[in-house]
Amino acid sequence: MTTDPLVVFTPSGKRGRFAAGTPVLTAARQLGVDLDSVCGGRGICSKCQITPGYGEFSKHGVTVAADALSEWNAVEARYDEKRGLKPGRRLGCQARIMGDVVIDVPPESQVHKQVVRKAASARVIAMDPATRLYFVEVEEPDMHEPSGDFERLARALKREWGIEGIRADLSLLSKLQPVLRKGKFQVTVALHRGHQGESAQVLDIWPGLHEGGLYGLAIDLGSTTIAAHLTNLETGEVAASAGIMNPQIRFGEDLMSRVSYAMMNPGGDREMTAAVREAINTLAGEVAGEAEIDAGLIVEVVFVCNPVMHHLLLGIDPVELGQAPFALATSRSMALGARELDLGTLNPRAQVYILPCIAGHVGADCAAVALSEEPGKSEDLALIVDVGTNAEILLGDRTRVLACSSPTGPAFEGAQISSGQRAAPGAIEAIRIDPATKEPRFRVIGCDKWSDEAGFLDEVGAGGITGICGSGIIEAVAELRLAGLLDESGLMGSAEITGTARMIPEARTHAYLVHDGTAEGGPRITVTQGDIRAIQLAKSALYAGARLLMDARGVDRVDRVVLAGAFGAHISPLHAMVLGMIPDVPLDKVTSAGNAAGTGARIALCNVAARREIERVVGEITKVETAIEPKFQEHFVAANAIPHKTDPFPELNKIVTLPQVSFNTGGDTGGRRRRRG
Amino acid sequence: MTTDPLVVFTPSGKRGRFAAGTPVLTAARQLGVDLDSVCGGRGICSKCQITPGYGEFSKHGVTVAADALSEWNAVEARYDEKRGLKPGRRLGCQARIMGDVVIDVPPESQVHKQVVRKAASARVIAMDPATRLYFVEVEEPDMHEPSGDFERLARALKREWGIEGIRADLSLLSKLQPVLRKGKFQVTVALHRGHQGESAQVLDIWPGLHEGGLYGLAIDLGSTTIAAHLTNLETGEVAASAGIMNPQIRFGEDLMSRVSYAMMNPGGDREMTAAVREAINTLAGEVAGEAEIDAGLIVEVVFVCNPVMHHLLLGIDPVELGQAPFALATSRSMALGARELDLGTLNPRAQVYILPCIAGHVGADCAAVALSEEPGKSEDLALIVDVGTNAEILLGDRTRVLACSSPTGPAFEGAQISSGQRAAPGAIEAIRIDPATKEPRFRVIGCDKWSDEAGFLDEVGAGGITGICGSGIIEAVAELRLAGLLDESGLMGSAEITGTARMIPEARTHAYLVHDGTAEGGPRITVTQGDIRAIQLAKSALYAGARLLMDARGVDRVDRVVLAGAFGAHISPLHAMVLGMIPDVPLDKVTSAGNAAGTGARIALCNVAARREIERVVGEITKVETAIEPKFQEHFVAANAIPHKTDPFPELNKIVTLPQVSFNTGGDTGGRRRRRG
Repeated sequence: MTTDPLVVFTPSGKRGRFAAGTPVLTAARQLGVDLDSVCGGRGICSKCQITPGYGEFSKHGVTVAADALSEWNAVEARYDEKRGLKPGRRLGCQARIMGDVVIDVPPESQVHKQVVRKAASARVIAMDPATRLYFVEVEEPDMHEPSGDFERLARALKREWGIEGIRADLSLLSKLQPVLRKGKFQVTVALHRGHQGESAQVLDIWPGLHEGGLYGLAIDLGSTTIAAHLTNLETGEVAASAGIMNPQIRFGEDLMSRVSYAMMNPGGDREMTAAVREAINTLAGEVAGEAEIDAGLIVEVVFVCNPVMHHLLLGIDPVELGQAPFALATSRSMALGARELDLGTLNPRAQVYILPCIAGHVGADCAAVALSEEPGKSEDLALIVDVGTNAEILLGDRTRVLACSSPTGPAFEGAQISSGQRAAPGAIEAIRIDPATKEPRFRVIGCDKWSDEAGFLDEVGAGGITGICGSGIIEAVAELRLAGLLDESGLMGSAEITGTARMIPEARTHAYLVHDGTAEGGPRITVTQGDIRAIQLAKSALYAGARLLMDARGVDRVDRVVLAGAFGAHISPLHAMVLGMIPDVPLDKVTSAGNAAGTGARIALCNVAARREIERVVGEITKVETAIEPKFQEHFVAANAIPHKTDPFPELNKIVTLPQVSFNTGGDTGGRRRRRG
Repeated sequence: MTTDPLVVFTPSGKRGRFAAGTPVLTAARQLGVDLDSVCGGRGICSKCQITPGYGEFSKHGVTVAADALSEWNAVEARYDEKRGLKPGRRLGCQARIMGDVVIDVPPESQVHKQVVRKAASARVIAMDPATRLYFVEVEEPDMHEPSGDFERLARALKREWGIEGIRADLSLLSKLQPVLRKGKFQVTVALHRGHQGESAQVLDIWPGLHEGGLYGLAIDLGSTTIAAHLTNLETGEVAASAGIMNPQIRFGEDLMSRVSYAMMNPGGDREMTAAVREAINTLAGEVAGEAEIDAGLIVEVVFVCNPVMHHLLLGIDPVELGQAPFALATSRSMALGARELDLGTLNPRAQVYILPCIAGHVGADCAAVALSEEPGKSEDLALIVDVGTNAEILLGDRTRVLACSSPTGPAFEGAQISSGQRAAPGAIEAIRIDPATKEPRFRVIGCDKWSDEAGFLDEVGAGGITGICGSGIIEAVAELRLAGLLDESGLMGSAEITGTARMIPEARTHAYLVHDGTAEGGPRITVTQGDIRAIQLAKSALYAGARLLMDARGVDRVDRVVLAGAFGAHISPLHAMVLGMIPDVPLDKVTSAGNAAGTGARIALCNVAARREIERVVGEITKVETAIEPKFQEHFVAANAIPHKTDPFPELNKIVTLPQVSFNTGGDTGGRRRRRG
């Protein structure tokens, strides 16, 4: 009796002996090797491609002969002819083990393939979406053993894939019979894994082998913009991304004005709900169009959003979120049908998952940041700030994570700033003011040159400079301070005091002229005293929120700062610290996480275990309510000033060494603001 | 140390000792005594009324002193003043145990109270509906421990009622916050027990204690009529019943013509679906109006229906049910939201349960008959026949149950009969023909007198006799045979041969004149040769179905026959056997079960365990498909004749002793009919 051939799979290293003639796919399944297959080994889906290795594999103690696998067969030849197989590849369901062999499973043949995220520091996402495709052969009906078509589909899924118990809604049942017959009782189903305790749900069914792919949407539903990433649920690749304005803006710029709109206008919440749902439908159609896929192939959606957006999306009046004690209607994660949200553009049975909210002011967007950045797994104490109209702030390490939200207002997004605008071509995004001459130089979005470089105006055109975006205004205020044009209290000096004609009178205060494009028909771009005040309010709120978490944690410094959000990605950490937006840390300890909320949504879309994880994590986060905490107000007031720090920023000292300046004027309205509630 | 007081509950006999001062409700709960309470012992719902007994209870070995319970308290006094307490009654949550006591729980205070069904032979229904009311006090929101209102509702239900895990749809979540606040965080919820593995669902919520009741609908969705019983889910009482015509009749009289309509007209199935759903909404509105309740209090619906009605209700094209192999889209029981069936008249979150189908021709209505009549628990071999446009037939005892459906057509319901009409006032429902004079006498619905009794015409009026209903035509055909006016093959004789002027010529055959009301402006009511043929076809189909089951069971007689259905309740068993509709059994072994399918629906509405039971039972029933069984055709042809049996019917011999008669004519079209498929 000879020994059965030895099979070693890479990269897993799993190995075993199998009778000669065993298909590679069968061996992989028995060993628990992660080798994909939709058709269940019928040689039609081509998902189980493998690469056999030949020759000496001393690491594995195997020498592979040229005839270790069965010969290339007709199924493989036909597939290669029609679609093309990469050189060296075989179909795992066709190739049979004839001798000792080493078999590599390439990444694209792994079910739980890993998707590398762009941010270098971030973890990879293991593909394990809630919805997968399964090809099955269903028994034909038999009068003598009567049973429903759906029950026979369930039996086939159990027999061929080991799936116990399925369910389907009426719209699926109504198409089941014609599809089964069209496919001659061979069909592909999209099966959505049940939520806790529920059976799996058939989301769609196609005759024969469905090769059109399966898609999901990760949606970051912000107060101002809605961003969607269309993701291939088989590969994890982003097929298209798009963003649109949140149409609720016409009901109120910020969250509290939308809550007010709902309170003042009966049915106002329903208007806003209808508006946002329509926008999401439009957005879904756009990304599907861009990726050239049928939007009906979108079977999953994950939403992240703040609590007010959360309630308005769900059709719940957000009135309770506008007043203490800021009670959410529900805080836990939501799993529901897209139809319940009127998302008619998608597959009619598409499933929605919404991350849990943390508290009345700290939403699913913050939960998504926690899922993406994992403060609870950090060795050092990390402060994570997601800057938007509200700032979501997380502070934590392996021992404990705290969260709060701080109402920064829209100034950081360029709103309520005299020359402010969104980050778009023509917006000044970076600015430097020479401490000696007080002259500015700047860079606008859409042009790589600085304004004092040759050819800048040729590229941009004077009329092409349209305003200042969020990152530009932060740099402008910090640079004004560093150039001695602004005192610690945030007051700008006159031309006489500061010695520069760039300081121009405006009402009873002064403004700094950044750029005058009026001769060319463009705008005159200034930073006014009002702009300074708006930024001071915003940065004080952000800083106060961070301090409150530090108090709760009992620390007065953090080890690192992560700036999240589209805006966070463009902030200059140095200027942010000059301004006092964030606590002091060494500059190399400030990193950008990009759109961490959106990334969290993508993770939850691609990996169901991540949903369970964030539900658990959210339950363990300590929630801090800023609105009722007297110390928040204290920190807020204390953070209003812009002290000129020389330490710990040696980089700054290389740029400027200026005396403290102080101006004396009247007419300042001070740094107080009304708190909501 | 004294011994704690002894408490004995009747009728359960449960007993135990409790510390003096323990409320009766608490003692009942600890002992597992079935004592209702919605408010959880707060003295507001009055569901926990009990009757203490005083004096000597030798059976229980207890002597009850006058002060065995605490004194009547303010809560009880207020309740008595406002609503009135029956003499001797106490509120179980207020009365405290002070000494040995015997406490009776009256039926209306039992959660699982039993509802006695009208049919004397039938079992009682123990109330255990899927949806119940629960009063709870929810914690108010706390900013320092943020949690959603829904999560706090869930906690309250767990704390006060031990219910683990609840869910709700968006429409409930959107009303949750205002209702909680209106009720000052005291609310009543209607909670629907989850289907297997699912958590319970909040169907509705009311501020404070909801006293408006909770209702369910049991709907028997027939091809011809739709009947609804509005049932109080707390008491089990039927609050109102109503029936309307199935509007699908305009698309086809019988099932197969409706399937044909769907096959011939694209979208025809959707037209029929919309029509039946609209009719159900109307019917629900009617019964709610009759009972003077808000239809929004209807939170449950149970449907029983045949497979074609089942598919059309669900919005599934029934085309596969019109052709071999008669594949159902799904055969298992269905649990879904009423909204999915567009039943907008009901509570927006009302839950629907549809009994399982047995086979492609044997529907949920037959399953409901099995649930009501329980052939699987019968000691003797029972044949259960539910007569309608299709007959559902069950044969079984404790060892095994078989089922089939037989296409009798609508003749038994008075359709396709020349003078036929539905069972309504004015219809002849019983008829006797004197074997000597050949003269008829009859009774019409709405009048207790026979037509030959004095004052009959005064009561009915000649024009008030409008036609013959199903039971009337069966009796007429049997009586014609017994009176020698009809031969064994079903052929009627002429006036010359039979010697009565009541036999009048009609086309090339003859008709029997039952009643001529033309002088008074009424119809001329006859039984034509065509009517005889229609009844022969129907009775042959019914008999052949029963025989097929007897063959499959290997028997040639049954022990008893149960006639179910509204029609079955009015059939004369004697005439049915003369006709050969049902196998011969002693007359006292033929019983009527009334509307057994409707009763099955009511059982499933009132008791969730019954749903699980019928799902199990249906899986064990042997399905027999009549359409493909060659022996069905054999039995069908053999059953066409109407032999004049003198045995085992001595009763008949008392009425008539006639010679066999035989007529000779041409023009008979014979007893063959097209089979479906």
